[in-house]
Amino acid sequence: MTGFKEFPSYKRLEELAKSPLDLTADGALSPERISQYVASAEGLRLLYATEKVTDDVLKALEGLAGEARVFEKMKNMQSGAVVNQIEGFPSEERKVLHTATRDIFDDPQDSPSASEAAALAKREVDKLEAFLPGVEGRFNDLVMIGIGGSDLGPRANYLALQYLQKAGRRVHFISNVDPDDAAGVFEEINLERCLVGVVSKSGTTLETLSNEALVRRRFEVAGLDSNHHFIAITGEGSPMDNPERYLESFYIWDWIGGRYSSTSMVGAVMIAFAYGFETFIEWLKGAHAMDRVALIPKLEGNLPLLGALLGIWNHNFLGYTTNGVMPYSQALIRFPAHLQQLDMESNGKRVDKQGKKVEFKTGPIIWGEPGTNSQHSFFQLLHQGTEVVPLEFIGFKECQYGQDLLVEGTTSQEKLLSNLFAQSIALATGKRSDNPNRYFPGNRPSRLLLAKQLTPYTLGAILSYFEHKTAFQGFIWNINSFDQEGVQLGKVLAKRLIEQFKGKREEGAPEEYPLGEAYLRQLDEV
Amino acid sequence: MTGFKEFPSYKRLEELAKSPLDLTADGALSPERISQYVASAEGLRLLYATEKVTDDVLKALEGLAGEARVFEKMKNMQSGAVVNQIEGFPSEERKVLHTATRDIFDDPQDSPSASEAAALAKREVDKLEAFLPGVEGRFNDLVMIGIGGSDLGPRANYLALQYLQKAGRRVHFISNVDPDDAAGVFEEINLERCLVGVVSKSGTTLETLSNEALVRRRFEVAGLDSNHHFIAITGEGSPMDNPERYLESFYIWDWIGGRYSSTSMVGAVMIAFAYGFETFIEWLKGAHAMDRVALIPKLEGNLPLLGALLGIWNHNFLGYTTNGVMPYSQALIRFPAHLQQLDMESNGKRVDKQGKKVEFKTGPIIWGEPGTNSQHSFFQLLHQGTEVVPLEFIGFKECQYGQDLLVEGTTSQEKLLSNLFAQSIALATGKRSDNPNRYFPGNRPSRLLLAKQLTPYTLGAILSYFEHKTAFQGFIWNINSFDQEGVQLGKVLAKRLIEQFKGKREEGAPEEYPLGEAYLRQLDEV
Repeated sequence: MTGFKEFPSYKRLEELAKSPLDLTADGALSPERISQYVASAEGLRLLYATEKVTDDVLKALEGLAGEARVFEKMKNMQSGAVVNQIEGFPSEERKVLHTATRDIFDDPQDSPSASEAAALAKREVDKLEAFLPGVEGRFNDLVMIGIGGSDLGPRANYLALQYLQKAGRRVHFISNVDPDDAAGVFEEINLERCLVGVVSKSGTTLETLSNEALVRRRFEVAGLDSNHHFIAITGEGSPMDNPERYLESFYIWDWIGGRYSSTSMVGAVMIAFAYGFETFIEWLKGAHAMDRVALIPKLEGNLPLLGALLGIWNHNFLGYTTNGVMPYSQALIRFPAHLQQLDMESNGKRVDKQGKKVEFKTGPIIWGEPGTNSQHSFFQLLHQGTEVVPLEFIGFKECQYGQDLLVEGTTSQEKLLSNLFAQSIALATGKRSDNPNRYFPGNRPSRLLLAKQLTPYTLGAILSYFEHKTAFQGFIWNINSFDQEGVQLGKVLAKRLIEQFKGKREEGAPEEYPLGEAYLRQLDEV
Repeated sequence: MTGFKEFPSYKRLEELAKSPLDLTADGALSPERISQYVASAEGLRLLYATEKVTDDVLKALEGLAGEARVFEKMKNMQSGAVVNQIEGFPSEERKVLHTATRDIFDDPQDSPSASEAAALAKREVDKLEAFLPGVEGRFNDLVMIGIGGSDLGPRANYLALQYLQKAGRRVHFISNVDPDDAAGVFEEINLERCLVGVVSKSGTTLETLSNEALVRRRFEVAGLDSNHHFIAITGEGSPMDNPERYLESFYIWDWIGGRYSSTSMVGAVMIAFAYGFETFIEWLKGAHAMDRVALIPKLEGNLPLLGALLGIWNHNFLGYTTNGVMPYSQALIRFPAHLQQLDMESNGKRVDKQGKKVEFKTGPIIWGEPGTNSQHSFFQLLHQGTEVVPLEFIGFKECQYGQDLLVEGTTSQEKLLSNLFAQSIALATGKRSDNPNRYFPGNRPSRLLLAKQLTPYTLGAILSYFEHKTAFQGFIWNINSFDQEGVQLGKVLAKRLIEQFKGKREEGAPEEYPLGEAYLRQLDEV
């Protein structure tokens, strides 16, 4: 297996990175460049004139993709090959088939593995469709209990579509083991009309089970039978797959990783409850359409691959350690938090697929907040600080609610877009000034994912775009983007500390753990 | 003026950074170290055994603080000297007296400048106290319209104290010029019982005025006189200081920067409305107490200075480009977003106070999410990724609502704390493994700000801790932490784009702006 740094195109890109395009040079950012450096698919347009790339760089990046065999790898993944693995070492050894959860429309994958997964997914979609009428008139609130991928993706997608909220329906999320999380949510809920969805693939997640216990007690205190209010979203046969305790079980499988689970029942039940079954299906269709785009076996037209390659250029060749995601849409307020998990948990790795320590940078730090808010916050540093942050902007031509107003000749949406475009230009071109404190160095790269409106279909396509962008980067780096061994040590140590707390209460003698005891002693001092 | 890199202690630290403490070495992280590397003030304990510091490093850092004259600079700031300035160039030339907004208790600053400011601040506090009874029984919802410092700090503080919410009181925030922001907020509000607070020091902020217009129209459409529902939080004599359009004007002054304005009327009106006047005063008292701590003229006991120096060690000497803030408290969910503005807008600078381009790194990128959620998200990268991120944890011994439950022998709060302590240990010590994918390199620094409970007083102290930590870092780097010239270029270009939109609608002929036109043409393609 040839490694990332051994590809011929790697050397070429390293060479090109010695004198990258200077966006502040006279005429470097021209109207022609803005209209030429555009790619589009499924209603999304990726504008990348403000990246520090030339045609030479793009050609070399395409070469890199070919040398890393990303087209074959993407096809393998979507066909149901066991791609979640480390060769020669014990690892998860799983398929990666989140795409199957939306492969229920035209032109499905024909491999037996993918077909079987899609059939299972379709069965759950049908189950959900049959379940929903029973909810009508009975439940107003849905409280989702889950953490990590069972929380961040669903929450980001829920918030993105609130303009479609069905009357009398609300969704709430409890994730943190912090007991104040659950307490805060229930301040305003009528328990009699409350449905609770508990999400855990294994049925054993510490935070989720603790919160489920907290919430079930709340029902009992209110004299209600919690078993008539709870549904499970879990693996078939898990400890939570129990009809006596849950009205219904919706299934997920080991081929759906938490951070890739939004379009499985993990996100589906909640989206369909809040916004209706048709909205849910539109959202799936958008994601499915972008899955197909990711299979295009060349750079042209393959939007997620282009995004992945531009990111690698910035991170590995130009040396920028973080990647900002700035949606100019209040509805996408928690989308950066979802992308943090999706990207950083997938690609924050130190060994390659053969278990060899990598000698280059893998996944960057992802962070961001919506614009224009972020302009009034940390954009000072982005324009004049000593760290350069490549940005991924996301924007829409039209707003969602359609409640806008002309003030001084323009709508708020137009002001929003004006700010968005202005930031791209300002970061790229900078500005000379005799006052050194009013000097803008510019030459700071960004790109923009632009669409007509944030509809369910578009949201699905954006979600899938980022999933495949992440996977493509992992393919190029030859790392396993689908496991998360790095979270295990914290779990093990947390268990030892929990034993300390337990021992203290029970006046027993827990296992000796001096470091843990030292921390517990600090609690006596506050 | 001696620059950062010319200080004798800089050379010493540079030398020490060549072989920093290895936290993975046998016995490096000991129970003794955990109890020794602790500092405390006003109920906050800073545990920093898991930072890569030795007594030598701490001594050199203290030397650096002395050479940079930070004690004198902090005293000057709190006394009302004109510290917001760049020498020899046009600049804001302002005092920086956010501390005066809470200097209304014992032992006030005695300089005329600070006394005068505190007297003005006290007048507004009294005005607020007199205003509140009139709100009783008349208003249930308060909608705050503001952006940047008028949004992020207040919102973070509001969310942090929701357990104290007065019955029938809710606060909402509209910030983004995205018209969907306002539309979403008003889905569930009874306008007749709604008070609206508009925040803009200048009375001219684009986003805020656009949102005010949107919201006023909503009242008019409902047949209500908006002038009876609006209050202004603005500079005295600004265009918004108009009793015909606002029930009341609460004043702020040019010596309160947006990101430092939480404890001024910008945050005060909203906190007092939601949680009562007494809670507001407790919060001020906590902030005031930490202001006093920041004035301690030595490192010992000066908690914000210690935080600042540890950050500089990590950023400038160990070379880490970002700084993660991870509160193990769901109530602090938006505190990292506030700190992004506070820190990055303050210290994301490229010239020193004499206008000379700096030759070192100024402010890091600040980012983070609450634990334990973040553990299930991006902590994979923190443990095993190729970027090292120094972390600032925040934790509390007790929860806020007191609604907790023993599950398998421990409470949720104990599980939360177990995870928090476990992460500190895991990041520091790492773990050997024959499976390279289960190998944890460790040696990743963190520290922990620990307190008994997140009360109003503690929240005020934490807020002030971070304000002064930021200021101290700016003092050491000799930069102006109180202006934000870097946001101006974007504003100028946005205005040109707004003119393009206007011109298109009015079929007039706006100023020629080819780059802007090129972006507008892209909108026709989506």
